[in-house]
Amino acid sequence: MSEFKEVTVTKAASVYFDGKVTSRKVTFNDGSFKTLGIMMPGEYKFGTNEEELMEITAGECEILLAGATEWQNISGGQSFGVPANSSFEVRAKTLIDYCCTYIS
Amino acid sequence: MSEFKEVTVTKAASVYFDGKVTSRKVTFNDGSFKTLGIMMPGEYKFGTNEEELMEITAGECEILLAGATEWQNISGGQSFGVPANSSFEVRAKTLIDYCCTYIS
Repeated sequence: MSEFKEVTVTKAASVYFDGKVTSRKVTFNDGSFKTLGIMMPGEYKFGTNEEELMEITAGECEILLAGATEWQNISGGQSFGVPANSSFEVRAKTLIDYCCTYIS
Repeated sequence: MSEFKEVTVTKAASVYFDGKVTSRKVTFNDGSFKTLGIMMPGEYKFGTNEEELMEITAGECEILLAGATEWQNISGGQSFGVPANSSFEVRAKTLIDYCCTYIS
């Protein structure tokens, strides 16, 4: 899906890691929401509350899930899941355009 | 307005200046659209096709309109207009969160 229709989008961005990671929230009619975000090249660790589906829309990164020992290569067009109340690390080798779906 | 309702938002970001400027397009029911974007600190020059209203949602920058000789200080919460088929320069002193409205 290249666009999201009949949604509400927040005007202000959420800013993390001194602005190297930014995102905006997109809320659907059923109350579910996603964030559309950008990561500049760099290394980041994120915590989760809900379960998340992270889709890498564009870019190249490596990710490490909590408890895992091997980094996985993820390229634009690929996704990975993260359990609730967990964490994951990202090594963004390029600019990353992502879409995160929160699963409650 | 802190959010835009009943809109269509593009999933993929538009990327400019090696990712230092990124934006996503928000389209309204009447066909008008805005872009919600981020500029990392730096200096940028943009061209316009349509007339634009640039709202700086957060951050501090200086701007110079085509033909002007004095830079203007613009802070979060302030806006400036740019004519169609023109250009403007931005010196982003901090991360800039912006909302650009295209007026046709």
